[in-house]
Amino acid sequence: MARIRLSRVIEPGDAALGRRLADVGAVGVCADLRANRPPPGVGAERWAGLRLRWREARPERDLCTAQKPGIRFVCPGDAEWPAQLDDLGDVRPVGLWIHGGPSLRLLAVRSVAVVGSRACTDYGAHVAAELGAGLADRGWTVVSGGALGIDGAAHRGALAVGGATVAVLACGVDVPYPAPHADLLRRIAEQGLVVAELPPGWRPTRGRFLTRNRVLAALTRGTVVVEAAVRSGALSTARRAADVGRAVMGVPGSVLSTHSRGVHRLLREEGVLVGGVEEILELVGPMGESGTRAGGGARADGSAVEPPAKPLVPRRVLTPEAERVLEALPGPPGAEPLRVAVGACAGERETLARLLELRALGFAEQVRGRWFRSPLRGGTGEGSGTSPGSDGRPPDGR
Amino acid sequence: MARIRLSRVIEPGDAALGRRLADVGAVGVCADLRANRPPPGVGAERWAGLRLRWREARPERDLCTAQKPGIRFVCPGDAEWPAQLDDLGDVRPVGLWIHGGPSLRLLAVRSVAVVGSRACTDYGAHVAAELGAGLADRGWTVVSGGALGIDGAAHRGALAVGGATVAVLACGVDVPYPAPHADLLRRIAEQGLVVAELPPGWRPTRGRFLTRNRVLAALTRGTVVVEAAVRSGALSTARRAADVGRAVMGVPGSVLSTHSRGVHRLLREEGVLVGGVEEILELVGPMGESGTRAGGGARADGSAVEPPAKPLVPRRVLTPEAERVLEALPGPPGAEPLRVAVGACAGERETLARLLELRALGFAEQVRGRWFRSPLRGGTGEGSGTSPGSDGRPPDGR
Repeated sequence: MARIRLSRVIEPGDAALGRRLADVGAVGVCADLRANRPPPGVGAERWAGLRLRWREARPERDLCTAQKPGIRFVCPGDAEWPAQLDDLGDVRPVGLWIHGGPSLRLLAVRSVAVVGSRACTDYGAHVAAELGAGLADRGWTVVSGGALGIDGAAHRGALAVGGATVAVLACGVDVPYPAPHADLLRRIAEQGLVVAELPPGWRPTRGRFLTRNRVLAALTRGTVVVEAAVRSGALSTARRAADVGRAVMGVPGSVLSTHSRGVHRLLREEGVLVGGVEEILELVGPMGESGTRAGGGARADGSAVEPPAKPLVPRRVLTPEAERVLEALPGPPGAEPLRVAVGACAGERETLARLLELRALGFAEQVRGRWFRSPLRGGTGEGSGTSPGSDGRPPDGR
Repeated sequence: MARIRLSRVIEPGDAALGRRLADVGAVGVCADLRANRPPPGVGAERWAGLRLRWREARPERDLCTAQKPGIRFVCPGDAEWPAQLDDLGDVRPVGLWIHGGPSLRLLAVRSVAVVGSRACTDYGAHVAAELGAGLADRGWTVVSGGALGIDGAAHRGALAVGGATVAVLACGVDVPYPAPHADLLRRIAEQGLVVAELPPGWRPTRGRFLTRNRVLAALTRGTVVVEAAVRSGALSTARRAADVGRAVMGVPGSVLSTHSRGVHRLLREEGVLVGGVEEILELVGPMGESGTRAGGGARADGSAVEPPAKPLVPRRVLTPEAERVLEALPGPPGAEPLRVAVGACAGERETLARLLELRALGFAEQVRGRWFRSPLRGGTGEGSGTSPGSDGRPPDGR
């Protein structure tokens, strides 16, 4: 509750308060505020502003209001907290507000940020959508900033193939910003996650876009910049990714286009040129995980789908809810989420959230909206492979 | 004469004979051939072929025939031999046949290879022409392979701004290959140089294109690949450039274009991404020579021209012919080559050759066909700067 309150007090990226938070904890910082005891590095004027915010914050009301549309608050120590954000040190978020079904921690295990300019070319939008679709097709989560242009194209590419996508906003998760993306953000919350450091209702500012970028960078295994002019904010995400040791990648374009000039500068300085999904996975996936040589299944339209070689965690660590959905999941060619939900005796939206988690962990696959157990699990002996009904669930999940 | 003869015997890139040549010299290798004494590493069958070629070679006749259209032979030890080719070690060319007026050694002092696929896109051709013009505009020599596509566009770009360009062919310098470039090669020989290891009359083969590439690579300070599919020969030039420690550069393009795929692979492996002339000169020029921050003159159309900060050699080492042309050269805005020729009392074509050399060395500049002394020389005290007539030449070169 103290962290919920502080999420209405501390501006994201505040290193001085972040340090104090690490030293004395959220309850300690609240005590500082109550006792009017400014920590080192915080000036009098800012401290006065922080105390104003603190007095106005109503964490219990926040929690009640948020829970109605299905928004939750996750902070360090929670099971859903993505531990990789701890790499941010003093500027680690106080907590994250999350809208959507799946676990952020699980979706972020294998995730890539695909970012770029709001003003983009048809080429950039096309490439971003292809990368979004290709990454999602291989079970990777596409993380972006929900903005117009490249970000939106990447999210849409992932949604179009039924994959998982996460939008990290620079405003509250309930704020439909930018307005033309209100529908898109709603769809992302249904088929993935909308995430923000800022509490519900807060508006974006220029500074908040920049501090948001460190979350995009640290949450994912690498950042791909698709199109960016020399002053684009997408480049700041790439720099933050380099700061926390993540892969920095760029998609080249015409040297005649100003929309690629920032990417080209990035590629001259520190980024790696990537032309497609395989090259991205070579950089962010563990050895061989890109699966290009390992074979893997094939999609109905003949294009290759490469599932991870094996699940990323042992089956016994799955939550009971995820385990129930996995038990209800048939082998290829699979079933639609509604069928799986009936088999698992769970709500359809809950089932989809669990399926996205199972996929992120390598237990499930999805082709054209039909979900099935990852075929490569057959030989692990950790449960039945593909023979229906052997573990108590109805044949074919029906 | 022995090396002229061997240029009809030894296939370019032959390391075994190259080693022998380094050990015993050209006369020694000729003695081997006469005495039927195969050097180590040369099989009986190949040796028989070499002896056949050796018996048929008529170096005196070659020299006579070549001299008529103005073709000369240059070999290690000659004043015109570009010493950087010695970096090729055992596969150093036996010698070079050269068609054109200027000194190859001088033109190659500040030179860049701009290469790419024969099958190129409009984008690639446009960028190659822009790079050719931009490099030539800054007094750099554009070296390429004379092929269709990127090579031709780079040569034409340099020619269009009155700059120096060198075509290194994989056939004799008198062979109009490829046929559609017969006119282009003729113009290059008039306003630059056409160069080949192979003796006059010899035809190109696939192997000769590949061995030719090492000459492009070693002659220049760096190689820029503009467009190349994954199996393009232009990539072999880039690899040879890396082998001899030259800069390896690539121009990116659409990731959707197969014509850029080879360049992108190069950029992932060892090349540096370049988007324009300034970025090329940052890599191949000495510190500050790109002149982007040093100011420099301005062209009549307002675009910037950056001459080298100072001449690359002392004036006293110029040949008497070059010195005479330099004396006849006015200050800005300059005069046409015919006017300079009248002032220097030399043939027009000879004068143009000397002007291209003077420019390569930083003594002269050229804007829209008008030549003038490099303004930055004014302060060196090594001769009059811009005051006409002070050193015995007619005012303004007339």
